[in-house]
Amino acid sequence: MTLTDDTATLPNGLTVDAARAEAARAYELDRTHVFHSWSAQAEISPMTITASEGCYIWDGDGNRLLDFSSMLVNTNIGHQHPKVVAAIADQAAKLCTVAPQHANAARSEAARLIAERTPGQLNKIFFTNGGADAVEHAVRMARLHTGRYKVLSRYRSYHGGTETAINLTGDPRRWPNDHGNAGIVHFFGPFLYRSQFHATTEAEETERALAHLHDLIRMEGPSTIAAIILESIPGTAGIMVPPPGYLAGVRALCDEYGIVYIADEVMAGFGRSGKWFAIDHFGVTPDLLTFAKGVNSGYVPLGGVAISPQIYETFAHRAYPGGLTYSGHPLATAAAVATITAMAQEGIVENAARIGSEVLGPALQELASRHRCVGEVRGTGVFWAVELVADQATREPLAPYGSSSAAMNSVIADCKKAGMLPFANYNRIHMVPPCIVTEEQVREGVAILDKALEAADAALA
Amino acid sequence: MTLTDDTATLPNGLTVDAARAEAARAYELDRTHVFHSWSAQAEISPMTITASEGCYIWDGDGNRLLDFSSMLVNTNIGHQHPKVVAAIADQAAKLCTVAPQHANAARSEAARLIAERTPGQLNKIFFTNGGADAVEHAVRMARLHTGRYKVLSRYRSYHGGTETAINLTGDPRRWPNDHGNAGIVHFFGPFLYRSQFHATTEAEETERALAHLHDLIRMEGPSTIAAIILESIPGTAGIMVPPPGYLAGVRALCDEYGIVYIADEVMAGFGRSGKWFAIDHFGVTPDLLTFAKGVNSGYVPLGGVAISPQIYETFAHRAYPGGLTYSGHPLATAAAVATITAMAQEGIVENAARIGSEVLGPALQELASRHRCVGEVRGTGVFWAVELVADQATREPLAPYGSSSAAMNSVIADCKKAGMLPFANYNRIHMVPPCIVTEEQVREGVAILDKALEAADAALA
Repeated sequence: MTLTDDTATLPNGLTVDAARAEAARAYELDRTHVFHSWSAQAEISPMTITASEGCYIWDGDGNRLLDFSSMLVNTNIGHQHPKVVAAIADQAAKLCTVAPQHANAARSEAARLIAERTPGQLNKIFFTNGGADAVEHAVRMARLHTGRYKVLSRYRSYHGGTETAINLTGDPRRWPNDHGNAGIVHFFGPFLYRSQFHATTEAEETERALAHLHDLIRMEGPSTIAAIILESIPGTAGIMVPPPGYLAGVRALCDEYGIVYIADEVMAGFGRSGKWFAIDHFGVTPDLLTFAKGVNSGYVPLGGVAISPQIYETFAHRAYPGGLTYSGHPLATAAAVATITAMAQEGIVENAARIGSEVLGPALQELASRHRCVGEVRGTGVFWAVELVADQATREPLAPYGSSSAAMNSVIADCKKAGMLPFANYNRIHMVPPCIVTEEQVREGVAILDKALEAADAALA
Repeated sequence: MTLTDDTATLPNGLTVDAARAEAARAYELDRTHVFHSWSAQAEISPMTITASEGCYIWDGDGNRLLDFSSMLVNTNIGHQHPKVVAAIADQAAKLCTVAPQHANAARSEAARLIAERTPGQLNKIFFTNGGADAVEHAVRMARLHTGRYKVLSRYRSYHGGTETAINLTGDPRRWPNDHGNAGIVHFFGPFLYRSQFHATTEAEETERALAHLHDLIRMEGPSTIAAIILESIPGTAGIMVPPPGYLAGVRALCDEYGIVYIADEVMAGFGRSGKWFAIDHFGVTPDLLTFAKGVNSGYVPLGGVAISPQIYETFAHRAYPGGLTYSGHPLATAAAVATITAMAQEGIVENAARIGSEVLGPALQELASRHRCVGEVRGTGVFWAVELVADQATREPLAPYGSSSAAMNSVIADCKKAGMLPFANYNRIHMVPPCIVTEEQVREGVAILDKALEAADAALA
């Protein structure tokens, strides 16, 4: 427990007493009026958050927690970065909103800074409100550019909550939304720990996963396939870093058959993987690249699509049939300008890379060597999954696919009680702190996880 | 022309010279890097906006324009309302972002204020990023609540840009996105000026439009229909205020067949029609109500769905399979709290009602009586359409459905040149200023339109 002294004040100036009163009221109104994402509404007890700073959040009781979830893996720059907070206030005072058909300085500058960082010639930026609509629009562009309809995406993936995006998702949350007519076909991607291809080496996994995709393209009919969409590193689905050669192989298949390659960088992009974009690890340039979250750390809702010259050309003299009121919103794009600028000035992407290779990665691998409940640790940068198993030999997950278990709930609860908020999904604990996390904070967070895993080990014994 | 003096400063403190330099750079970067909504990218020359205040915006040359578009009909409270600007800066300093699974004071309070105003018992609020995803989620709720798939929506409607939302849209922008499998059937709604039902009175139009909908339900199969979605007053499609009895009749049909009634209040809600929600004019309570735009005047991207107790109950003990990272975003909901509070304190909805019935409505009707190019004027509050025709007898539109014409472009250009920015769609000029518009500003805006219509009259003569 890291209970703050009652007489202390939180970083935003609230006293602990005032924060508790605010949280009590917020909780009561939440339960009366707020409908939550992905939840059985009567069965949840949301934690109230009253303040945040850097790698910390404060809950409704005044406890400080290390935020190793980065909320929904979005606060790459950390909480309440003063330069981004100031940029939002400045832009609010200057100009809050313009319609998408007009031009505006904040939007233009954000587009420039993003285009400067995207791979290849993806220099045209279409702004959306978040990742889901970025994916919706990328798919639309691909369909109209190719004149084909079908889109391929992998099992064990997440692409967003709107109708097309959730149907692209390879995750049980798709099931209640799958009416069989979204024009989407799923395939298996590389995941050596749970290989679909009976592979035992990364090279074998790459080769067989590409052969599987190639066969699937031939069976579905190349002339029916508009796009392949892939998270460059799948996020919520398990942070499976693709083995060498896989993404280049996908690029080659797309080139061979005239299929648009959409790289989904919503979670993996903007420093999370230790590079600006996760695809930069693989030297591959997609045709479309979707982003959100890290682009402005979620301080203001923003997402978008970076577009190749070829696809831009399709809509140069023919109207692109899509849009939204808040496309390129000044407040959201001003926050992106401040975020990207601060990340560059302060070496935040480099910090994520160093933390991953020198601190967080090694520390988690060391945990894996000691805990019988750990099946595998994998990741890069500040993007790590700890896959928990009931049995290291059979690799039986500690919670069933698409579900939770008492053992998993207890690991998560122990982490929180000890002052560290992880990101959890099914049988996995994701350690995904802000990119600004320090070595000391990583040691503290990993020590808390270490302790929580001891209880899980004991339950398995 | 209302060219600002070169030595003057804009309301945000920029000198005209500085604003011009900023605008030139913004325009150049826009054309290099920004992909725009609904546009042939190489054929547009966006107007740059550098400042705004109340009912005015400033373009890149330093010209002040009366904003009778409210951007995309979203700045109901006017531009740069000091209380909303301050609330955004305050919330940014306090807490910019939390994940949707947690609770937060700003989100809770916004939900309370919205629930207080929605009709009937629509007291649970699911927050989205905008109108399109609000509609996507409302449709999902209806499908899962009823166990049916099909959704009915009207021709001459707009429901958003994502895949399901654009397919619900009854507008040519749907066509390139319509692959025939979205589970949507369109019907004709009441529109006496261009009656589909050969009606000559409002009562006849209501009766026949309801009979048409009833027949269509019977032919499609009531047991296949999850929902009927209707803008309470269709917005972009033409501000056709439904005749008395129509929405009540739709409600009765939904009740008879167990169909969910979704009221789309994205454009018509939050004061635009002279009431908090347009459906309040008709004494009808829907099962789901979608909102965006006016909820915080678009100062921060925000939308949502207000949910009936019956539909909430469906997701009380079964997970709702949808969500988004920025659901109930603190900055967006803090802006909603400030907007709704200021609108209530300052009588802004009442102002919209009074302006509509006493000033803007009568002034436009007076125009109609003098201009041969005006076919019909219709609306309520600060939500008015001027339907332009080539021939009053045949009612031939001044631009074809789904297109523009030289005559329409010239009316729009004349308005802008004289210092008034209208909202335009096909053959219609929409006069949709902020709800705070004054009588004097309305007189000025209508006088500019009057002059622009004279040229159109002359071209027809």
